[in-house]
Amino acid sequence: MPIEHLHAVPHLTTSSPGPLLHLERQLLDRQTQIEAWLRGQWLDTPAPFYASVDLRNAGFKLAPVDTNLFPAGFNNLNPAFMPLCIQAIQLAVERICPEAVRLLLVPESHTRNKFYLESIATLMEILSKAGFEVRIGSLAEDVTEPQKVDLPSGRQLTLEPLVRKGNVLSVAGFSACAVLLNNDLSSGIPPILEGLDQPVVPPTNLGWTKRLKSNHFAHYRDIAKEFGAIVGIDPWLVDPMFRQCGEINFMKREGEACLQKNVQTLLDDIQKKYDEYKVNRRPFVIVKADAGTYGMGIMTVHSADDIASLNRKQRTKMAASKGGQEVSKVIIQEGVYTFETWGDSQAVAEPVVYMIDHFVVGGFYRVHTQRGPDENLNAPGMHFEPLAFAETCVNPDVSKAPDSNVNRFYAYGVIARLALLAAARELAEI
Amino acid sequence: MPIEHLHAVPHLTTSSPGPLLHLERQLLDRQTQIEAWLRGQWLDTPAPFYASVDLRNAGFKLAPVDTNLFPAGFNNLNPAFMPLCIQAIQLAVERICPEAVRLLLVPESHTRNKFYLESIATLMEILSKAGFEVRIGSLAEDVTEPQKVDLPSGRQLTLEPLVRKGNVLSVAGFSACAVLLNNDLSSGIPPILEGLDQPVVPPTNLGWTKRLKSNHFAHYRDIAKEFGAIVGIDPWLVDPMFRQCGEINFMKREGEACLQKNVQTLLDDIQKKYDEYKVNRRPFVIVKADAGTYGMGIMTVHSADDIASLNRKQRTKMAASKGGQEVSKVIIQEGVYTFETWGDSQAVAEPVVYMIDHFVVGGFYRVHTQRGPDENLNAPGMHFEPLAFAETCVNPDVSKAPDSNVNRFYAYGVIARLALLAAARELAEI
Repeated sequence: MPIEHLHAVPHLTTSSPGPLLHLERQLLDRQTQIEAWLRGQWLDTPAPFYASVDLRNAGFKLAPVDTNLFPAGFNNLNPAFMPLCIQAIQLAVERICPEAVRLLLVPESHTRNKFYLESIATLMEILSKAGFEVRIGSLAEDVTEPQKVDLPSGRQLTLEPLVRKGNVLSVAGFSACAVLLNNDLSSGIPPILEGLDQPVVPPTNLGWTKRLKSNHFAHYRDIAKEFGAIVGIDPWLVDPMFRQCGEINFMKREGEACLQKNVQTLLDDIQKKYDEYKVNRRPFVIVKADAGTYGMGIMTVHSADDIASLNRKQRTKMAASKGGQEVSKVIIQEGVYTFETWGDSQAVAEPVVYMIDHFVVGGFYRVHTQRGPDENLNAPGMHFEPLAFAETCVNPDVSKAPDSNVNRFYAYGVIARLALLAAARELAEI
Repeated sequence: MPIEHLHAVPHLTTSSPGPLLHLERQLLDRQTQIEAWLRGQWLDTPAPFYASVDLRNAGFKLAPVDTNLFPAGFNNLNPAFMPLCIQAIQLAVERICPEAVRLLLVPESHTRNKFYLESIATLMEILSKAGFEVRIGSLAEDVTEPQKVDLPSGRQLTLEPLVRKGNVLSVAGFSACAVLLNNDLSSGIPPILEGLDQPVVPPTNLGWTKRLKSNHFAHYRDIAKEFGAIVGIDPWLVDPMFRQCGEINFMKREGEACLQKNVQTLLDDIQKKYDEYKVNRRPFVIVKADAGTYGMGIMTVHSADDIASLNRKQRTKMAASKGGQEVSKVIIQEGVYTFETWGDSQAVAEPVVYMIDHFVVGGFYRVHTQRGPDENLNAPGMHFEPLAFAETCVNPDVSKAPDSNVNRFYAYGVIARLALLAAARELAEI
């Protein structure tokens, strides 16, 4: 990316900025109440160790569409805000083992995905600058001895095989106070991680083996209502509606009638809201695995008929999610248009916000030139250009317009924290 | 200050950089151990709400010379690091009253000192962006009704008279969860602040009415020893030696013999260390009020004879400190040369590091063209140019030289936190 674009910010193109401007204005005006309310919430339900939240900004609506509790992409954050990450991670680790020196980081097993490993390298850098010794214990079967990996950034990582003695996990000669998970456990909880004496953060039960998107967004719906009351807005402006079915088997076409019915109901509900806000757009929904991530098993649906007419290839794609889990439960989520675009090419941009403990530490835009405003931007094989946020999300300025950059970033940070709070409520349940 | 100088950093000119380079190297090498040890210390003795620490960098030695628990000068920090302040203050207030919305700020009573009021305006901005409502309750007698003050920065403050109802302090129509003191209480603890139901932070007993520099530096001496053992350095490299006398009356020349004796002993002790480290400089000591601040009642002394030959004007100056308190106890502190200079004029530069809770949030240099390297740079009527730190103090880089900017700032942050820890131990005693 050319250097002069580093501090550019996507531009919001929408025919009806009315409700969002109202929302952004309300967020600024009620900032004190919002922050006080959030502080109280973190006391009741502490935030998970870290998270990233994908937002969609439709101009008339700003809402989270996915909350990742084992975030990657730390390498995409603005290096200028590294100090915020360092400060926040010090606090986050203090809560787990206050006198900790050594942490064992257990990443995803994609040992050849250098984009992912760059994120791990940045995460290690943050931890190291915060004053922790970190080594990487890999779950990958092919890591049977220490492997050095050279990264495009010039950094080098060493992946080491995990060693379990009794209920203590380590890598050779390195006893760690805690295990830091950066693996979403889509393929299940490996026995080597079960029943450990050390704290495992985030806990394995926040992995996709146990977690359901529908549960997350049910909590989020409650939170959006509480938040709407405090801020004085219609919760729908920040909340994507959703519906669920029971078991679905795409290959055997079982449960399809229920899916079609729910898709239609949700499309109707969206249309009602669009009518209310005079949004002249076609409603759409996203159908995706209720447990899962990485944008596999995701489709954009504009009508109930789209379901019946799925071809074999599309069905196969929906039937298996990351880690080979069969998709048996899906969530049908209101599609939120992305009307933020970047550059002359009008590339679609989707903000992703990063949090450590309950602090917003940065974010970036996923910029994609080959996707439309109603498509998922985190789909498999998808290529995006990361565009680091030019400003932090914690520095609102009431003297500026509500849609000025610093205030837009503040709005992102608020909505992302609502999603984080939903995750905190999930965490409290396990 | 010309804009091109904003990111400049003073240059260290010294004939013997050996020991400091060794110190800076050790700080980098032992970073993990230092941070882990500090984490443990904050658990035992939580840090005060905020602090600023004046450091002196002699090249062969880097040491704190003053620790201010009611810091001013927030306006001199680099605006780029405002987010660090916001994040840290959120945490600091959370510890006092987690669900707080409203804070009452009680500043110094210099209602006409616009430099000071600019700092208050910045502090209010930090608190406001962190999500708190803040109003200023003034102890000044001439504030009998709300007074608007326009500041050179274009900002405006409103000073309001304090109202006490029973044991609750407020300003008209504003009930606050806590009282945030930014007044060092040199003139004593005003009755209006005593026995309040609300928490007062920092507590009034950390004001100069009760606090003694000698107690602070006695704690610091212990800490420097513990730290020296961890880092593997002679504690003297970070610790200014000091001695005390009993009561002194400069006007009546009482206690002078004791002072002379102690000055001589300390000068001899410094000479021994200078010999050990082959420092070819003349030792000096600083004599200052044991309770007090603002650089009043401070003198540089090169020999015991300097004490005997004080003239009437000098005695008068030493006899009264800020707030009119008679200086009856003095501390005799090892003078630490400042060999950091800035610009073509070789102006002397002294780093001041700011902390909120136990987090280092920024700092600036006091740059003074008319002072020598053995003079106090925070003396009355003194004019300095603030030069904001170009980098944060929390982002060390082991791939860079130990005396590179980011690593030097990290070293400042470490030594400043040692002084903060001494203050935390003072706090634990009261």
